[in-house]
Parts: sequence; C-alpha cells; structure tokens
Amino acid sequence: MSKAQQLPSLRAVIMAGGKGRRFWPKSREKKPKQLLPIGAHEPLVRETVNRLRPFLAPEHIFISCGRDLARETAALLPETPADNFILEPVGRDTSACVGLALEHLQHRAGVPADTVIAVLPADHSISRPARFRQTLLLAAKVAHRRGLIMTIGIVPDRPSPAYGYIQPGAPVTGERGARQVRRFVEKPDLATARRYLRQGFLWNAGMFVFRLDVMRAAYARHLPVMAAGLARIGASLDRPGRARVLEREFPKLDKVSIDYGIMEKVDNAAVVPGDFGWTDVGGWDALYCLGGGDGEANVTVGAVEVVDSRGCYAEGERLVALVGVSDLVVIETADAVLVMRRDREADLKQLTDRLLKKGRGDLL
Amino acid sequence: MSKAQQLPSLRAVIMAGGKGRRFWPKSREKKPKQLLPIGAHEPLVRETVNRLRPFLAPEHIFISCGRDLARETAALLPETPADNFILEPVGRDTSACVGLALEHLQHRAGVPADTVIAVLPADHSISRPARFRQTLLLAAKVAHRRGLIMTIGIVPDRPSPAYGYIQPGAPVTGERGARQVRRFVEKPDLATARRYLRQGFLWNAGMFVFRLDVMRAAYARHLPVMAAGLARIGASLDRPGRARVLEREFPKLDKVSIDYGIMEKVDNAAVVPGDFGWTDVGGWDALYCLGGGDGEANVTVGAVEVVDSRGCYAEGERLVALVGVSDLVVIETADAVLVMRRDREADLKQLTDRLLKKGRGDLL
Repeated sequence: MSKAQQLPSLRAVIMAGGKGRRFWPKSREKKPKQLLPIGAHEPLVRETVNRLRPFLAPEHIFISCGRDLARETAALLPETPADNFILEPVGRDTSACVGLALEHLQHRAGVPADTVIAVLPADHSISRPARFRQTLLLAAKVAHRRGLIMTIGIVPDRPSPAYGYIQPGAPVTGERGARQVRRFVEKPDLATARRYLRQGFLWNAGMFVFRLDVMRAAYARHLPVMAAGLARIGASLDRPGRARVLEREFPKLDKVSIDYGIMEKVDNAAVVPGDFGWTDVGGWDALYCLGGGDGEANVTVGAVEVVDSRGCYAEGERLVALVGVSDLVVIETADAVLVMRRDREADLKQLTDRLLKKGRGDLL
Repeated sequence: MSKAQQLPSLRAVIMAGGKGRRFWPKSREKKPKQLLPIGAHEPLVRETVNRLRPFLAPEHIFISCGRDLARETAALLPETPADNFILEPVGRDTSACVGLALEHLQHRAGVPADTVIAVLPADHSISRPARFRQTLLLAAKVAHRRGLIMTIGIVPDRPSPAYGYIQPGAPVTGERGARQVRRFVEKPDLATARRYLRQGFLWNAGMFVFRLDVMRAAYARHLPVMAAGLARIGASLDRPGRARVLEREFPKLDKVSIDYGIMEKVDNAAVVPGDFGWTDVGGWDALYCLGGGDGEANVTVGAVEVVDSRGCYAEGERLVALVGVSDLVVIETADAVLVMRRDREADLKQLTDRLLKKGRGDLL
C-alpha cells in the first residue's frame, strides 16, 4: 500500500500565472517561462504536471493561470479537464491566486474540508522527481494529521542571495523529518546567506501543503478583507453571473504574496526539507549552470559554432557564431538577438522596459 | 586647362576580384566586400567608380572580376560597357589579373602604347576623393613623362602591422612630390612598424600607375613565362576561340602578387605620397573605427538597443540587444549571427573554415 493511498484526499494547485521577462527574448507575453522548455525537455508547466501524475489523476490537478494564457496553457495539458483551469482576470499576486483556488475547491462536489492541497509553482526544475514526490507526500501526511501549514524548504547547496530563507524550529512531535517554522526571512545579502547556510536555514521555494479547512481559517484570520471578497466570488461559482462577479471582485483583492500575507503570520507553519535537485531556473545564468556550465565550458543549444570562447550560454535558431568571447549569454530568436554579459541579467529589465517605452511591445 | 587634359590617355583598371570573408556574415561568396556598402553609402566598387568619374568616362574604366561575380558586379555599374568587364575564369592573384587587363588594353583599338593605366583596388574607402584624384593625376603625369611604374604610398597615421610598407628613396628629378622606391617591405611587427613610421615609410595600398608599354616590358622581363601565356590569351582576344584559350591558359598562370612578381623586382618604381583619408576597411574593427568608435562609444547600424555597453560594433536587421557587454562585434543577418571580440577578427577565418568543413557552405 503506497503512502498516497493512506491519504484521504489530495489535490494539487499549480500556479502558472508567471509573466516574467527574465528569459527574453525566448520568453514573451504570450509565451512566459512556464510555457517554455527552459532547462527541460518539455515546457515547465507540462513537466510540473508530469511529476505529479504518478500519484494524482488529471481531475485532481488544478491549474491557476491568467485568462490571457488559458488557451496556450491548456494546449500543453490536454488531459486536464477544462473545469480544472482556474483563470484569473488579472494577476493579484499569490494570496489572491491561492485564495481563488480555495474557493473553487471548496465549492466543488467531492472535496471534503480536510482535503490536502499542494500549491506548487509551474516554472521550477526538479531533477529527482521521485524524491520530490516522496517529500510532497510526507508534507501532505503531516498537514493532514496535524493541521499544519506545511512548506517544503529546499536544502541549499550554496549561500545564494537570490532566495528567501526558512529557519526551522523545534521538531514536530511524532512526525519524523518535519519541524516547526521559526521564521521566514527575506532574500539576504551574501554574508547573511553564508550564515544562514551554516545555521541550517532552508530555501523558500514557494511550495505549500495544507488542509483546505486549515488554510481557509488562516485567510479568515489574517486576510479577512480578502477572505470576504473571495467568499463573494465563491458564492457565485455555481450561478450564471459568476464571470461578472469575478471580474468585479478579483481585481479589488489586495496584491500580497502568500508568504507575506499568510505564511509569516500563522503560528502553525511547519517545514520538511527537500533535496531533489530543485532550481527555480531564475534566468539565463541558472540555465547555464543547469547545463553544466562551470565558468570555462560553454553551454549551447541548437545551431551554435564556437571558436576559442568560454563560459558562454548560447542558443541559435539559424546560426550563432562565437569567436573569442567569454561569459556571455547569446540568444537568437526569429525576431531578436540578445547579447548579454552572463552576470548582468538583472539589467535585462532595463532593456525590456525600454522596448516597451519605444513601442516595441511586439518584441515582448 | 586641367591636369587631366595634359595627359594623352588614361585608363583605370579596378580590381574587383576579392573573395575575403573578413566581413562574414555580412559578406558572402556571392556578395563579397566590394559589392557591399561597407563603411560607405554605396557598394565599394560603385564608390570606386564614382571617385573616378570626374575625369574618366565609363568607357575608360575597366573592371576585373571573377566570372562568377560578373552579373552581380555589372548590376552595380550599369553605365560600364559590357566589353569593359575583364572576367577571370579563376582567381590567380594580382600579377595575372593585371596582366590580363594589359592584354585587353593592348588589343583594343584606340589605346596607344603610351596610355597610362591606373590599377586600383575595388574595396577601399577614401574620405577625400578630390585629394585622391589630384594624387592619382600626379602619379599618372610622372608615369607618362618618366616611364616610371608609380605607386601611391599612403601617409600612415599610426604604426600599423597590418600593411606592407614602401621606403621612399631619392626624389625623382624634376617631378615635385615623386620619389624613387628604395624597397617594398612586408607587413612588419609593431616595433618595426614604429620605426618605419619615424623613418617616413608609406603604406602600400596596392595602387599602381604606369604606361602600358612600360608594364608590358616589366612582365616580359620579370615574369616571362606568365607573359608568354598572357600573350597567347591576348592573341586570341579578337578571334572566335578566345573563351577556350582563356579557359586553358589563365589557370596555368603563376599565382603571384604584383608586388612580389613585378614591383619588388623593377628598378623603375617610384612613389607619390597619398593623404586622402584612405582605409582598406580590413575588417569589422576598421568599420568600428571608421564609424567613430573610440573604445568607449558604440557604433550601431540598423536595429540595435544598447544597455550599459561600450566599445561595441553592432548591426541589427531585426533587433540586436546588448546588455552590459564591451568590445564586441555583433552582426545579425537573415541566417547567421556573429558575436566576436572586436580584437579577434583574425580568428574569423577559423570559423568560416569550419563552417565550410561542416558542409555549411550555404552560410559562406
């Protein structure tokens, strides 16, 4: 008997609403990161679903995404029932996103109040999916038995200033591997990140596992105004005017992350450590590292010719030729070519902002 | 009365047979540098003809080029009579090129033996064409009066190791500005180039001005085997079998430059200094300098967006975006993108050689 079968009920909500431009010019408004095979064989949202399929039926996997990307996202997930797409009229950050999913599940037949829900980002990469599933099931079990809001904290392999951290506290009694959360902390500077690493902090990867009833109670207590708005949307879900209510109520919800709005405030957060080859693939440099780049070797995808160059990440559709260069990201697409120093991806936003300002939204 | 009118007869032969790949991916087999507007408003061969038109009629300007590029070259020079294209079946370096032109002129009605011929490369850039014409006419006058084989030696503005040098000797008696050539020297190293600069050496720009009879005598003396082959071609020119004779004889001619085969050997070479904003536009870096690049500024052509970058030369057809990079050449064409360190253009050949070896001749 598998551990999954010991659970009364499990649902996954995949947050696929990302709009980032960190993979420009590959990623576009209509083709954000989660819809691309960034550092993977299949589009990331597809891989995220694939990881869950060994223990979750398609009807038990929900996809939250922007209404404008519904068609593109659904095309990648043909087995997902149309009803399982939770479409946001606008992006209102993760508290509203998760809250809307809770309403959908709450008003759905056959979803008991103690159903365990796993909220998972759509655009991360995991190299050891079996380990991931094991960890997720452990979190689900603890969430169900103890009524805790569980997170999966990634075991860091370096002192990265790019992630928020979780400080584990006392062990959860009787639940081997789970510890209470002492606190969530913001992205640190490098020195602080080093200290966190020594002190056993974990990375916050935005993965949360909880019972439906427990999280609804947390919303009611810590985000009461939002909970009221969500309740109005929830009440409309099986009525004809539901589209109008969503259109009216959802944009009014506070724009606040679930980390800040819920996780940092609750006193029943717990964490299980995750060590399954996770990366959020934050940008081109992460893709370089993921591809085995080590500062000397080049990582190339597609049609790329390299002469005496090192430390480059390059993707060519027609042909990209590198001669005597180092530490660059070079991405060729049908209508744009990016040439960027590999450590300067923070400045990519300047570029995309300027393109927008110059009326070149067609390139974004 | 202009100086030109003092000359009995002047013809120009423009050597447009270049096949270089130093402007890859912009230059291609079928579109070599001289057919492109490299650092200029019009294709270089067109600009070369334009420079001569103030004192030469189209019938007096001859174009030497490979048979495979005849159509493309002629399309740029609609006023040039078809008879004025001297087509080489294969490239056999500049001695054979000039020699073939001599035969054409020799066998043409209305070209006296003392006609002065100016041999000029098709792919150089000259920013002060009036000064150039003045210098060319001076060389022609001396060549005609004194029976000297004249070169135009460029007054260097820096100790470049990229050019051969000419050491001027004693003044030519009675010809103000002209000096005998003491010797031609190969491309020097930088230290030697510095010494050459101090000692008043000039750059060899491959521009030669001479009387038809004088140069024919030089061929007979210094390249007698070639002269005999050329004579067989010449004798066939007004006969039906001329194409067959050219096809048979021309490929057998020695592959030797006119500098080595003739100029270094004759004792009647002289030089006039040229100071008319000349550059051979030797590669992308030269184009960067020509565009006002100074190591800090970027030079961009077409659709290029730059964020915090310096010292780059970039050409974009669709869009090239530079972020945080320096000292690069980035060239985007319809089917290839080159990203090269600006000081590494010597390695471009490695790349094009490899493309050829890999069966990607379509990109060359």
